[in-house]
Amino acid sequence: MQDKFFHEDRFFNPDPGVRKIAREIYSSIKDSPIISPHGHVDPAIFAKNEPFPNPKELFISPDHYIFRMLYSQGITLEELDIPDKNGNTKSLNPQKVWQLFGDNYYLYAGTPTGAWLDYEFSEVFGIKERLNGINAVEIYNEISEKLNSTEFLPRALFEKFNIELLSTTDYATDSLIQHKSILESDWNGRIIPCFRPDAITNLLDMNWKENIEKLSALVNFELNSYKNYIEAIELRREFFKEMGATSTDHGVIEPFTHKLTKNKAEELFQKALTGAITEEDAFLFNANMLMEMARMSSEDGMVMQIHPGSYRNHNEAVYEKYGADKGCDIPIRTEFTINLHELLNAYGNHPNLTVIVFTLDESVYSRELAPLAGHYPAMKIGPAWWFNDSIHGMTRFREMVTETAGFYNTVGFNDDTRAFLSIPARHDLSRRVDSNYLAGLVAKHIVSKTEAIKIAEDLTYNLVKSAYKL
Amino acid sequence: MQDKFFHEDRFFNPDPGVRKIAREIYSSIKDSPIISPHGHVDPAIFAKNEPFPNPKELFISPDHYIFRMLYSQGITLEELDIPDKNGNTKSLNPQKVWQLFGDNYYLYAGTPTGAWLDYEFSEVFGIKERLNGINAVEIYNEISEKLNSTEFLPRALFEKFNIELLSTTDYATDSLIQHKSILESDWNGRIIPCFRPDAITNLLDMNWKENIEKLSALVNFELNSYKNYIEAIELRREFFKEMGATSTDHGVIEPFTHKLTKNKAEELFQKALTGAITEEDAFLFNANMLMEMARMSSEDGMVMQIHPGSYRNHNEAVYEKYGADKGCDIPIRTEFTINLHELLNAYGNHPNLTVIVFTLDESVYSRELAPLAGHYPAMKIGPAWWFNDSIHGMTRFREMVTETAGFYNTVGFNDDTRAFLSIPARHDLSRRVDSNYLAGLVAKHIVSKTEAIKIAEDLTYNLVKSAYKL
Amino acid sequence: MQDKFFHEDRFFNPDPGVRKIAREIYSSIKDSPIISPHGHVDPAIFAKNEPFPNPKELFISPDHYIFRMLYSQGITLEELDIPDKNGNTKSLNPQKVWQLFGDNYYLYAGTPTGAWLDYEFSEVFGIKERLNGINAVEIYNEISEKLNSTEFLPRALFEKFNIELLSTTDYATDSLIQHKSILESDWNGRIIPCFRPDAITNLLDMNWKENIEKLSALVNFELNSYKNYIEAIELRREFFKEMGATSTDHGVIEPFTHKLTKNKAEELFQKALTGAITEEDAFLFNANMLMEMARMSSEDGMVMQIHPGSYRNHNEAVYEKYGADKGCDIPIRTEFTINLHELLNAYGNHPNLTVIVFTLDESVYSRELAPLAGHYPAMKIGPAWWFNDSIHGMTRFREMVTETAGFYNTVGFNDDTRAFLSIPARHDLSRRVDSNYLAGLVAKHIVSKTEAIKIAEDLTYNLVKSAYKL
Repeated sequence: MQDKFFHEDRFFNPDPGVRKIAREIYSSIKDSPIISPHGHVDPAIFAKNEPFPNPKELFISPDHYIFRMLYSQGITLEELDIPDKNGNTKSLNPQKVWQLFGDNYYLYAGTPTGAWLDYEFSEVFGIKERLNGINAVEIYNEISEKLNSTEFLPRALFEKFNIELLSTTDYATDSLIQHKSILESDWNGRIIPCFRPDAITNLLDMNWKENIEKLSALVNFELNSYKNYIEAIELRREFFKEMGATSTDHGVIEPFTHKLTKNKAEELFQKALTGAITEEDAFLFNANMLMEMARMSSEDGMVMQIHPGSYRNHNEAVYEKYGADKGCDIPIRTEFTINLHELLNAYGNHPNLTVIVFTLDESVYSRELAPLAGHYPAMKIGPAWWFNDSIHGMTRFREMVTETAGFYNTVGFNDDTRAFLSIPARHDLSRRVDSNYLAGLVAKHIVSKTEAIKIAEDLTYNLVKSAYKL
Repeated sequence: MQDKFFHEDRFFNPDPGVRKIAREIYSSIKDSPIISPHGHVDPAIFAKNEPFPNPKELFISPDHYIFRMLYSQGITLEELDIPDKNGNTKSLNPQKVWQLFGDNYYLYAGTPTGAWLDYEFSEVFGIKERLNGINAVEIYNEISEKLNSTEFLPRALFEKFNIELLSTTDYATDSLIQHKSILESDWNGRIIPCFRPDAITNLLDMNWKENIEKLSALVNFELNSYKNYIEAIELRREFFKEMGATSTDHGVIEPFTHKLTKNKAEELFQKALTGAITEEDAFLFNANMLMEMARMSSEDGMVMQIHPGSYRNHNEAVYEKYGADKGCDIPIRTEFTINLHELLNAYGNHPNLTVIVFTLDESVYSRELAPLAGHYPAMKIGPAWWFNDSIHGMTRFREMVTETAGFYNTVGFNDDTRAFLSIPARHDLSRRVDSNYLAGLVAKHIVSKTEAIKIAEDLTYNLVKSAYKL
Repeated sequence: MQDKFFHEDRFFNPDPGVRKIAREIYSSIKDSPIISPHGHVDPAIFAKNEPFPNPKELFISPDHYIFRMLYSQGITLEELDIPDKNGNTKSLNPQKVWQLFGDNYYLYAGTPTGAWLDYEFSEVFGIKERLNGINAVEIYNEISEKLNSTEFLPRALFEKFNIELLSTTDYATDSLIQHKSILESDWNGRIIPCFRPDAITNLLDMNWKENIEKLSALVNFELNSYKNYIEAIELRREFFKEMGATSTDHGVIEPFTHKLTKNKAEELFQKALTGAITEEDAFLFNANMLMEMARMSSEDGMVMQIHPGSYRNHNEAVYEKYGADKGCDIPIRTEFTINLHELLNAYGNHPNLTVIVFTLDESVYSRELAPLAGHYPAMKIGPAWWFNDSIHGMTRFREMVTETAGFYNTVGFNDDTRAFLSIPARHDLSRRVDSNYLAGLVAKHIVSKTEAIKIAEDLTYNLVKSAYKL
């Protein structure tokens, strides 16, 4: 028999005094509704509400957090039958892939992926043992069976998970047809879009011209000038807002911000239309578009999110065969104090603007982000992101951010996931880490328990709603 | 009723074994006299020894640590009636401003500012509850009343706080008239100046030429050559030294050090006199002046402090209306290994020189500063500075510095404050964090308790005196 | 009487629950054989197997970890009688130097050097008190006496330390005569070389041409072309492999990787032969040689180690008098995501390659190294290196690496030392820190105790053997 693998005190400080306080704080927030203001779940699964196909398709195929670890240990994506960029697989027996997953499940020891999976197996599917090579088939069958029951349909799980709101992330040129379908259905689940215009603002995007044509078709006028282009973006934002969106999202390598003159912007836009863009051109245009987006947000009130610093598709061989989001995005050093100077000077004191800044570079928490958010009224710090959305990662976030920016210049938790089933696992982990951090402050007599419980409730629910204007 | 808000075990590790040791170590240092070798308290308050006007003027108006947090949450500096750059306010009712402060005091939860304020309210003014919106007026009145008693006059508090020595920070062109007045008074409080020549060494300082004229008037000869200029600086250092100064202080963005040829230095100096200086010119001149200052320190024995890496007045709108030191200074990434190479090669082995280096960029603690200070005899590491002068910040400092540089290449604590009343609070917090860190080493059997107590006494008192040559 | 200075629970979390688990995990690995896959012990000491001369020569003279701390506090290398670059000393009484060491032993409080020394004194020499100024002579005599017994001969200690394998680090042009002598002796201790070609790949090495001539003599053909040069390197790798080497090692300032065209490589090689090389040339040639080395490793299977980011001989005055490795090497900021892009794209998916990457810049653990090693099958992360090979340093390593890369993309411990006697001390400290980290995970219910013990055994023994192909 294995040691008990899923414990009610998991992630809490082992000191009995602190643990007792952590439990008490956690108990006041563990049943709060989930607000997921930023993520990548496909809205189609709720529009269609069809059963998830099988455990391998549910857990492994769409989740690069999972297969990147297996890949790092020499297991090929072919062996895991990950769909290639055209969606084709070799139709391997999914149970065999699952067996390989079970055989290597020990690799996740000490990782948040392991902690989330443990939660999903235990709390969602009622599995009693940690997955391994011996029980893999049995667990596969147990999950498969459940997936075919109505309780495990996407909408039923959405309700079971107590999700009050879920935001997806959508191309500026997305028709939002899935969102419309959900809105028009008799289901009350609240799923809203988020406006992500990278594919039309990054002049080096491989499909930029195609995207501009799509945009043109959607707004019904030609995009032959920078002015038209800006108007088209404003119209799409309006449409997204009508469809429920309250935020925009901007993925850039470097968060440099700089307003170009109209002439320069026009020049670059025309150059892009004729196709002869340089890296420097695209860099400047991006910097300018962040300024435009901040300006639009200060006008239409949509919350602006900046997610910088990811070197996308670092492993070109994997990218060429399998496409994006295959575990090959690697962070790079990121600078904010100088890069955001122009944006914050133009809009950082604006009462109608909220800019939520994320980072993959933890060295900026105490050095740049907390000092900036601890001063500019428009700026807030997004939660520990991606690789740092983890027990130690979130703890470092609180330790390095709170003392300068306090709790109230942060915005609660984002799960940022495309793995729907991991949502409650991720929120639970975050709530536990926050409860534990606050318990430490109580035990060290820095805040009272009453204050800590209030802060925990704000971090879990109230701050998310207010920061994202929900 | 609130939870007890001010606890005798605050900030100590909750583990009962460690806490017991921390208490014991702390008890051996808690009553040590305060030595404050670097800070920004205005010496005039001791020269004049007048009562502090009211709680708002005492706590809020001069302390950007406090109002930057309120500002970040959308409270304007107008609402707080912060004096503009000409010293003008709107004469709002200070009790109303205080009420706003009380209403928002929860924002400081988990910040060192909150911990210091709690100390000041509890230990200096005997307040029994944490400030909030309900008790704000009552507390205002309680503090106001005390401020009018002779016990709360600046000199009386200086003595009550058990301050053995306080260093101010002064322009190279300051007459030190307040210091002279204190020296000539019948009061024995030891308040010494520190020589800060940035305004005459930074060629891009808006008032550089004016400052050079002031300097010229003070030394009584014309500053028409680089040679004269250097001589004038040497004379001012001599004057500061006579007035009790034992240290100099240098605020630069990047701590690049490089000796220019005499011709090049002369050329840049003449260029500055005629006003056509570039950023590159100023950068090189600064690098050269750090070399000159190290040379002078190796000659006159004054301890050289370098405080680099702050992007001053990042929020230009606030700067234009309110001037400097309004919570808008934001750290940037800082490099030391390459930048200090020339200075350390020229003077780092010099027995008469002490260079104390500070940083706002914590990534350099283990990577650059500890290895440098753990080798060069002239170099020491200043304590966790500004945003990092906090419980977690000081703990990270010890964790990242000690293993490479030991305790004895650090220099004890600096409060670095312009908020006089926060001095005992800051020193107490620092002593507690050091006691706690040492208690951890004892509990992990790395040092004995006897050794830990000796180290604590050195960090609190002896190292400060020796490092600053007091 | 002193407090007990060497405790069986040292370095473990003081929480009684965690400590109990840590003890149990540690007990399962503490007697594992030592595998030392990377270090700098001189193989001659085992070839000759002569008694160590005296405590000062054994502990102080060869170990810059020790004398850099004394130097930083104003004790000169002359006073310590450190051999100059020609090996000359002033033949000071070694007992007097030892006394100075004892007088200043308190400087090592809280440092790993102190912890290692305590271990060596207690566990290797049976000393019962921490070294200090009073007991220094007594301890000197006690150690001296033991050094003259057969039990303290190098080979006897090697066996007593339970070292299964020790790797040295050797110039590409080394004859490996000491290794041959050991192999041909009747002693069974396994000591293998590691191929370190920096002195022939760094075109700016002061002796580059001389080294190329040596290399030419060893391979018995003229090195008049880049092609010949590459062939010669391949032959030397073959020779090292025959002599037992399983790894190569590359020390570069910046780990930039870039394949040059054959023509460009030839051009730079010829330029170097005639002596007119620039920094840019050397930088590009290094980048190219890392690509060549990765290519060769993918062919001959030797594990490639990269140790970047040390600014060597920062203190030129010390370097000129005393030579390299005198405590004057200082880390600089290091970048991996962009620098390793080309190498990892060319070879990172290769099943025959292992690249172990080390860093002195901890900011890259969570940002760059863990994400890279958590994806590329060929890449692994080397343990906390040099200044970070310490209690807090190794803890930070686990905390910042594990959540993204897991345990199995790391490679166990490297002692990396030239101080033979510190080997068991360093491995013991590492095993304790890992046991303690794992105990924390168990206490927080993240892994089971059974799982933790398995991981501890892998980190201590199995992963080292597999990663280094031993």
